[in-house]
Amino acid sequence: MSAQAIDYANASPEVRAVFDDIKKSRNVPDVNNFWKYLARDPVTLKRTWQSVKEVMQPGALDPLTKEMVYLAVSVTNGCGYCTASHAAAARKAGMSEAMFGELMAVVGMANETNRLANGYRVPVDPAFDK
Amino acid sequence: MSAQAIDYANASPEVRAVFDDIKKSRNVPDVNNFWKYLARDPVTLKRTWQSVKEVMQPGALDPLTKEMVYLAVSVTNGCGYCTASHAAAARKAGMSEAMFGELMAVVGMANETNRLANGYRVPVDPAFDK
Amino acid sequence: MSAQAIDYANASPEVRAVFDDIKKSRNVPDVNNFWKYLARDPVTLKRTWQSVKEVMQPGALDPLTKEMVYLAVSVTNGCGYCTASHAAAARKAGMSEAMFGELMAVVGMANETNRLANGYRVPVDPAFDK
Amino acid sequence: MSAQAIDYANASPEVRAVFDDIKKSRNVPDVNNFWKYLARDPVTLKRTWQSVKEVMQPGALDPLTKEMVYLAVSVTNGCGYCTASHAAAARKAGMSEAMFGELMAVVGMANETNRLANGYRVPVDPAFDK
Amino acid sequence: MSAQAIDYANASPEVRAVFDDIKKSRNVPDVNNFWKYLARDPVTLKRTWQSVKEVMQPGALDPLTKEMVYLAVSVTNGCGYCTASHAAAARKAGMSEAMFGELMAVVGMANETNRLANGYRVPVDPAFDK
Amino acid sequence: MSAQAIDYANASPEVRAVFDDIKKSRNVPDVNNFWKYLARDPVTLKRTWQSVKEVMQPGALDPLTKEMVYLAVSVTNGCGYCTASHAAAARKAGMSEAMFGELMAVVGMANETNRLANGYRVPVDPAFDK
Repeated sequence: MSAQAIDYANASPEVRAVFDDIKKSRNVPDVNNFWKYLARDPVTLKRTWQSVKEVMQPGALDPLTKEMVYLAVSVTNGCGYCTASHAAAARKAGMSEAMFGELMAVVGMANETNRLANGYRVPVDPAFDK
Repeated sequence: MSAQAIDYANASPEVRAVFDDIKKSRNVPDVNNFWKYLARDPVTLKRTWQSVKEVMQPGALDPLTKEMVYLAVSVTNGCGYCTASHAAAARKAGMSEAMFGELMAVVGMANETNRLANGYRVPVDPAFDK
Repeated sequence: MSAQAIDYANASPEVRAVFDDIKKSRNVPDVNNFWKYLARDPVTLKRTWQSVKEVMQPGALDPLTKEMVYLAVSVTNGCGYCTASHAAAARKAGMSEAMFGELMAVVGMANETNRLANGYRVPVDPAFDK
Repeated sequence: MSAQAIDYANASPEVRAVFDDIKKSRNVPDVNNFWKYLARDPVTLKRTWQSVKEVMQPGALDPLTKEMVYLAVSVTNGCGYCTASHAAAARKAGMSEAMFGELMAVVGMANETNRLANGYRVPVDPAFDK
Repeated sequence: MSAQAIDYANASPEVRAVFDDIKKSRNVPDVNNFWKYLARDPVTLKRTWQSVKEVMQPGALDPLTKEMVYLAVSVTNGCGYCTASHAAAARKAGMSEAMFGELMAVVGMANETNRLANGYRVPVDPAFDK
Repeated sequence: MSAQAIDYANASPEVRAVFDDIKKSRNVPDVNNFWKYLARDPVTLKRTWQSVKEVMQPGALDPLTKEMVYLAVSVTNGCGYCTASHAAAARKAGMSEAMFGELMAVVGMANETNRLANGYRVPVDPAFDK
């Protein structure tokens, strides 16, 4: 364990409370490295977890769709940690290999056409502004 | 119509063939500005349409999910045209206002935690590499 | 003229010296908006112009190639001003419509495969590290 | 070989057909990791290779210029794999150390002035819209 | 007022409560467009305001420094709205024209050297990992 | 030492002159890897160092604020090397753990709201254009 990360054994009561809620909500025995590193700032740890918990709960979009969107953003931004962790989360939520393949194809295509639209300086169609 | 765009009336037969396929596939009376600008390069126009058509067809992921992922990437990249056009496409495919709100919430959160992971230099958990 | 920009008539002697050098080096009657806005900070104006002048001069790469690379980066970053100004500069340096089309095709493809490599978490081939 | 990658020995006939075409087109004994990972989705593998092959062939722009543009985009996006692989490809196509140095200088400068233009909110010169 | 935005007069009680807290906290007569558009999703509106309020309050960093960092990120990402709004907020918090000029210079330089580090594939110095 | 880097012992007189100035200006016994890799292009090495030296000197903004802004940009861009090196530089300039935590919180929040503004296509308030 790096000195940069805070493990449960070394955590303050307020950090432990967040870790406990993550473990209970996700039904996992331990939290991921992301939370252990963020625990260096207990205020940001608590706020981030509460926000993620609220945003990722089932609603108009199901958890699998939300995790795939999270993965699409992470891949676009080139965040290696986030790509690894949200691919794992999406698979746990039901993403099959075929779904992963199609998701990556869409992400790749969107990144390509985003630049074609930029390069050709395409003006927004009036119909899109209605 | 800008001199930068190619309208059906001024299009070559090969460009018209692509425009016709877009209109037929999407059941629309005209193509969006994106295709009219891209028509300046007929080879790229044809290849891009064929790729988009293949990637966006129903498969392991449904068209609505694919459009929402496309929108998530476009918003992350800050492509104004793409955000406008794919928001319209996603709504046409069934995205409700509630779904749009949740989608934006996930996109925002992913962009935030991507940077927290970068900033704290979080190493990938061994479990994600299995 | 916006109050945010500094025109030659309102420029200090040090700003005018930079404007004069830009006009002389590029053989143009006036400088672009970029320089008029940057003139609000004469130190950054001078340093940026000197750097651009040094970097964009003919060398191992010719001016056209350099302008096309500048455009490729600007399109990738989604900088609207830079895309417009460097497309104009590249055309002035000899970029044909066919070259523009191929350039955009490469930029689009690179942005797509960059994300495929991110998403599939492809490790660097040992041969690339030699 | 990671379980995430598909080697020739384990590839299906359709994947082998793509691998064979890559090896023949590039005159190389084996394909790079990028293709071995992408092979997990044979449809995306085939489409991506056909697109790359079409886009990167000699045309109005020569292969070296195209590879340098590919590298410029990859560096801007921070794609580590792509930076390594396209630097190798550009060198193979003739990029000298002096050309690499100037390419990086242009990429760096473009990324800097892109943000200066964003920050000063520079409006597009009317001349660029002609 | 666009149909996309929700003004105080048309807002629900829960949206008005957030608008009231923004106006009181910032001592302003009305909220910015950002909040009026976000009001379309009251849950995200409330969470985002609470997070922004917590993050931007004086702490180990003063409000001016926080606003300048916010502006630096917005300029880097090319978010036009955010660049305009956070430049205004930073000026209100005390950013002088000289400070703005130096801030942009640092943002530009960081974006440049970020790509030089990417392009040269510079490995992290062992001293930075202590 | 990688063959990609140039150490003081193997450096040309012009590279050594830059290395000497870096060591003297920063009062350090050796230069970071960034400069050793950049030394492959002595012209870019010299120009980049002179620019960084000018931009990062105390002025309207103090060195600590400048380093934190540099770090904020590096984290946003996902440059691993730059995040590591500028976090070290910021700490050396006085950034405490509490300041780092708040800095990351602002960077994360800015990246989130940048995308919410993009996604909701928020128009700039007239007051910001005054």
